Amino acid sequence: MSDPALTYELFKTDAITHARLGRVTTRHGVFDTPAFMPVGTQGTIKGQLPSLIAETGAQCILANTYHLMLRPGEKVVAELGDLHRFMAWPGPILTDSGGFQVFSLGDINKISDDGVTFKSHVDGAMVHLTPARSMQVQNDLGADIIMAFDECPDPTKPREYQLQAVDRTLRWAELCIESHARKRDQTLFGIVQGGVDLELRSHCAMRLIELDFPGYAVGGLAVGEGFDAMKTVLAHTTPLLPKDKPRYLMGVGFPRDIVEAVSHGIDMFDCVMPTRNGRNAYAFTRDGAIRIRNARFTRDTGPIEEDCDCYACRTFTRGAIRHYFFAGEMLGPVLVSLHNTRFYQRLMADIRTAIAGGTFDEFRRNDLRARLGPAVHAKDETDRD
Amino acid sequence: MSDPALTYELFKTDAITHARLGRVTTRHGVFDTPAFMPVGTQGTIKGQLPSLIAETGAQCILANTYHLMLRPGEKVVAELGDLHRFMAWPGPILTDSGGFQVFSLGDINKISDDGVTFKSHVDGAMVHLTPARSMQVQNDLGADIIMAFDECPDPTKPREYQLQAVDRTLRWAELCIESHARKRDQTLFGIVQGGVDLELRSHCAMRLIELDFPGYAVGGLAVGEGFDAMKTVLAHTTPLLPKDKPRYLMGVGFPRDIVEAVSHGIDMFDCVMPTRNGRNAYAFTRDGAIRIRNARFTRDTGPIEEDCDCYACRTFTRGAIRHYFFAGEMLGPVLVSLHNTRFYQRLMADIRTAIAGGTFDEFRRNDLRARLGPAVHAKDETDRD
Repeated sequence: MSDPALTYELFKTDAITHARLGRVTTRHGVFDTPAFMPVGTQGTIKGQLPSLIAETGAQCILANTYHLMLRPGEKVVAELGDLHRFMAWPGPILTDSGGFQVFSLGDINKISDDGVTFKSHVDGAMVHLTPARSMQVQNDLGADIIMAFDECPDPTKPREYQLQAVDRTLRWAELCIESHARKRDQTLFGIVQGGVDLELRSHCAMRLIELDFPGYAVGGLAVGEGFDAMKTVLAHTTPLLPKDKPRYLMGVGFPRDIVEAVSHGIDMFDCVMPTRNGRNAYAFTRDGAIRIRNARFTRDTGPIEEDCDCYACRTFTRGAIRHYFFAGEMLGPVLVSLHNTRFYQRLMADIRTAIAGGTFDEFRRNDLRARLGPAVHAKDETDRD
Repeated sequence: MSDPALTYELFKTDAITHARLGRVTTRHGVFDTPAFMPVGTQGTIKGQLPSLIAETGAQCILANTYHLMLRPGEKVVAELGDLHRFMAWPGPILTDSGGFQVFSLGDINKISDDGVTFKSHVDGAMVHLTPARSMQVQNDLGADIIMAFDECPDPTKPREYQLQAVDRTLRWAELCIESHARKRDQTLFGIVQGGVDLELRSHCAMRLIELDFPGYAVGGLAVGEGFDAMKTVLAHTTPLLPKDKPRYLMGVGFPRDIVEAVSHGIDMFDCVMPTRNGRNAYAFTRDGAIRIRNARFTRDTGPIEEDCDCYACRTFTRGAIRHYFFAGEMLGPVLVSLHNTRFYQRLMADIRTAIAGGTFDEFRRNDLRARLGPAVHAKDETDRD
């Protein structure tokens, strides 16, 4: 069944891998896939002006339901003209359901079949989040793509708990479909859970597909299960999902993870890594991450990354940016976050070009960025300031 | 004698007041006067990208010798390609001498006829600053306009001390001229001190004029003497200065102070107020300052200031900006600082237009901005969040 608020076009599937080239059209414009969505947790991509984010090539951005419902409140955002006006982002926006943040950030009081009761990190008030409430909040926020309210359980919990959590996620998925009040404007994605249990993943995926969501996410990965387990789950789960609908891997990740996931047929990604690392003076480069605070950059007249075309690299020396970090000036975090955001968008653009040109398998085996995982950080960490 | 690195053109003097319309040409471009220079204390205008500062209409910016000599060090800035490259500001830059900061921020160990010994606020090291050292630092930094090293004494000190400080300032001015090693690239301004003692101001001005500086500053104002005292000193001192050279009132101030000083013939201003107030959520508007954190802006869909053309006002609602402050997001300080910077540049542009059109006296008497002094802040402070 076609969705009134979203169209997915699949232009090409790679001959060797499962990588897909496509495009998603929403009521606020299009984004090319595979796509990386910068994260604007509290309604702003930290330290970045929307005009500069658009200049990095980002076409769709993400905001967090959990944070915005607590502050300033979804009704305030709605009164200010919805999330597009609020964030000054006229293009496509996706909101998550709040589920992941409740389970990872909230001081949880109680999980029941009804929903979750948690303590607000803003003012300590008790908040009750249910599938219906998540839908109402996301309807008020007004993003183009909204996510079903799911349970993302601790992967170390026993199988019985995982099974119970998946069943809850499935019941909640149905309730979300029922509660979603803006189907003509906003597209609801289902979320496949099941941890590292492939049987559970199959069960969850199959049942969600029966519910005929216009798009599917793979949730519950990049939560500590490790790269190999993530690969196994993606190789198993992604092929189960309908080919004519977009597939979104939530909260991932390092360039290595993205390239791997694209090879299994994932179309959409989001992660705080470009901005979080940027604020901590870690800059992504093709050869690995560098720590701009490092003493070796004190007199470095080069840009953060040679050949990068971002505003930071076109405009500032490594030496000046290092100084801004030491002097406690906002410009340091702003510039490195901007560079990292552009780094991710270039990666996605190059992935799309490789798929289009039939060279994605070569890209995945040979491009230096396909190796950038957590180790690249540890390496530089040992350098002295 | 004409200066190899700076030209001042006086286009018009107001028929009623002493306001002057002019233009300063440096080796890095021109700025129209009366001009307001945003302050980039540590080599960055706090939270602002240079491209956006240029968009506000600012043509010349300021950086602080005291801060940059301590961190990252003037030699590092020089190795990174001088202050223009370091700050990514290709246009005119002015550096102060470090004197004011030493006296206001430094933990002073000793003032002598030779110079000042103080404790660095960065690492606690003892630093000796002399006229020759200030010149060497400013020569290394490479700004277009550099300032003589002066003593800016506490205005409450007795007359004998003020006299001694002025004599020191005059001796140091000669030493600065002797030490200045880049006369072809950088223009050295002398600074008239003397506190609120008009006789001392005359003495200092006359002696500096004999030294034939290419430009003159009035220092030691806006340090707590009050608006009326400032007016009196300006009315006395400014007419003593040569008409064919630019005049700079250091560290001033509120819009009211600027309009007043322009009427006495001042051409250049700098102040941290637009950015400092912006970081604290105070936004300048024609009708007075508003505190964006105020609860009345929670659902306000308007811009910071109606009819303002700055990026912040074109792009974001007051409600969203208020949220960013409460959520601790950088974007709040960034946007209000940007607005305030544009507010000051519009004020200067309107002042120049009024002088050009022969309506400056009317402007000064009727424009709402000519009343914006410290009181506008106190008013809003009483509102509740």
